[in-house]
Amino acid sequence: MKIHIPELSDIQKAQERIKPFVHRTPVLTSQAINTIAGRNVYFKCENFQKVGAFKYRGATNAVVCLKKHRLKAGVATHSSGNHAAALALAAKMQKIKAWIVMPRNAPEVKKQAVKGYGAEIVFCEPTLESRESTLNDVLRKTGAAFIHPFNNFNVVAGQGTAAIEFLEDAPQIDALIAPVGGGGLISGSSITVRGMRPGMKVYAAEPKNADDACRSFHANTLFPSENPSTIADGLLTSLSPMTFQIIRANVDDIITAEETSIIEAMKLIWTRMKIIVEPSAVLPLAILLENPSAIDGNHLGMILTGGNVDFSRVTQLF
Amino acid sequence: MKIHIPELSDIQKAQERIKPFVHRTPVLTSQAINTIAGRNVYFKCENFQKVGAFKYRGATNAVVCLKKHRLKAGVATHSSGNHAAALALAAKMQKIKAWIVMPRNAPEVKKQAVKGYGAEIVFCEPTLESRESTLNDVLRKTGAAFIHPFNNFNVVAGQGTAAIEFLEDAPQIDALIAPVGGGGLISGSSITVRGMRPGMKVYAAEPKNADDACRSFHANTLFPSENPSTIADGLLTSLSPMTFQIIRANVDDIITAEETSIIEAMKLIWTRMKIIVEPSAVLPLAILLENPSAIDGNHLGMILTGGNVDFSRVTQLF
Repeated sequence: MKIHIPELSDIQKAQERIKPFVHRTPVLTSQAINTIAGRNVYFKCENFQKVGAFKYRGATNAVVCLKKHRLKAGVATHSSGNHAAALALAAKMQKIKAWIVMPRNAPEVKKQAVKGYGAEIVFCEPTLESRESTLNDVLRKTGAAFIHPFNNFNVVAGQGTAAIEFLEDAPQIDALIAPVGGGGLISGSSITVRGMRPGMKVYAAEPKNADDACRSFHANTLFPSENPSTIADGLLTSLSPMTFQIIRANVDDIITAEETSIIEAMKLIWTRMKIIVEPSAVLPLAILLENPSAIDGNHLGMILTGGNVDFSRVTQLF
Repeated sequence: MKIHIPELSDIQKAQERIKPFVHRTPVLTSQAINTIAGRNVYFKCENFQKVGAFKYRGATNAVVCLKKHRLKAGVATHSSGNHAAALALAAKMQKIKAWIVMPRNAPEVKKQAVKGYGAEIVFCEPTLESRESTLNDVLRKTGAAFIHPFNNFNVVAGQGTAAIEFLEDAPQIDALIAPVGGGGLISGSSITVRGMRPGMKVYAAEPKNADDACRSFHANTLFPSENPSTIADGLLTSLSPMTFQIIRANVDDIITAEETSIIEAMKLIWTRMKIIVEPSAVLPLAILLENPSAIDGNHLGMILTGGNVDFSRVTQLF
C-alpha cells in the first residue's frame, strides 16, 4: 500500500500557514533537572500552546488546508482528548462548525472544554463500533470533513512544526525525544529532524503499559494496543499505517517507561519547573530517568506535549 | 523613630549587584484570564525565580551587601517559608554558612529544601518566644548576621528589583498589584514605581482572614495580625515598622480577598496558564475577581510571588 506522507517542505508550508493562529512556545530548562538527569535537557513547552496541547498545530493546519467548498460544511472527529478541543478551537477560529464524537462517559471537564470552544458534541457508547458508526452518521448527515487525530497528512505536517521551532530556538540539541501514542507528533517531528538535521537522533517514548508502538517497531509489524492501562491516558492509541511507516523510516528507537518513572518525572517537572504538564507529556524525561544508557546525546530536546490535567486524578499522587 | 528606608537608587544598585545570581523572570499573559477579568493582566512570574520565590532577590542582596568580616561569620534567620530557602541558597552561592531557626513542626518538605541548600536548621518550639530566644542563641554563639525576612533595608531593596524588570518588560502596565504579608515586596515595589512612574497606581492585596495590613493602613496605626487563618500561608506575618512606613507613603490602597476568591484565582492560573503558583501568590488576581471596581487601570501588573506548593494540602481543592 502506498501512503502519501509529508516531507519537510510540507511541514515548512504548514508552519507559515498556522503561524497567525498558534503560539510559538518557549523552550525551558531546569538546572535541578539537569543535575538529576546528568544531561542538559531542553523542554519545548507545548503545554503552553493554545488549548494546552501541541494538537492545536495539526488541527489548525488540517482546517486551514480544506478547500473552500469543504470548509463550509465544517469538520468532524472522534476524540475525548486534546484533539477534540484542538479541532473545536481550530474550527471556531475559521468560523466553521465542528462535530466531536465522544463517549457518553468521557470526563465532564473534557466535555466542557469542547463545548466552551463552540463545537457540537455527539455522544456515542464507549465502544469502537459505536464510535465509528456515530461518526459515519455525522459525516453522512452534515457533509463535514473528517479530521483524523493522527492518520492525516495535514495533521502530521502540522505536528511537525513544533520541531522546526525547537531546532531554531535550541540549536544545540543533539537528540529529540517525543512521546508516542497514535504517532502524529513523533512522525511530524522525525520528518523535520531528518530534513533539517539528518544525523541527529530521534527517539519515541512510550508507557510500558501501552507499548504497542515499541513492539510494532521492533517486530516490524503493526500491532494494535491491547488493554492499555497507564496514567499517561493520552497515549492509549495504536499507531496508524501512516504513522507506523514514518516511524519505521525515521525513528532511531522506541523506549518504554514504567508507571513509577512517569509519576517521578511528572513530579519533578511540577515541583522543580513550576509548570503543569499532563502525565502523557513526561514520557521523554521518564525514559531518561529509567534507562539513561538507551539514549545518546548530551543536549536532549524533549517535547512537553500538553498540560491538560484531570486534577482530581493526578494530584492524588502527591 | 527615624527609619532608614531605601530609595530607587538603592534598588537600582541592588539590581546590578544581584544580576549574576537571579533569574530575570518572564512576564506572561493569558487571553482566557483577560476575558474573565475584563482587563489586560500581566503576570511577573517570580514562581520561576530561584528557590521558586521572589524572596531570593532580597536574601541575595542582603548577603552580597555584608562587609567582608561579617560575611565570614555567616548569616542566620527565622523562617519556615520561602525566606528560609532563599537565605540558605544565597549563603551557599557566596560560600558562607547559614543557620535557619525553624519550628520543630514545620512541614518536612520545607526542612528538606533548606537542608538541600546546605544550611543548618536549628529547631525551636512553635512559639514566638522560643523562636526569638533560639535565634538569639544562634547569633551569640556564631556571630552570624541576622537577615530579617522583611524588616531589613537590603532585603527590601532586593525585593524592589522585580518591579524594575516588570516596568521594563511590560511598560504598558498602569497599575502594579502585589500581595502583602510582612510587606517586603510591596515596599520595594512601591519605591520602584514611585521613582520610575510616579503617577502609577500601586495596590497591595491581602487575605481577608489575615487583614492586619489593611486595618493598619486604614487606621494609620500598626496592628499585629491576630490568629490569621488562610490558605495563603505565606501572608500570615504582620508588617514591620519599616514596611508600614513605606506602605503608608507609597501605596494607594490595600484590598482584601475572601478565601473562595483566592482558591478561584489559583485554579484559574493553574488550569488556564499551566503554571504552578502558591496560594499566597494569587492575591492580586483574587482581589480583581472579587472587587474589580476597587482597582483603577486597564493594564494591571501582578507579581506572582512564588510557586512552592504543599501539594498534599492544595490539591484537595481541585
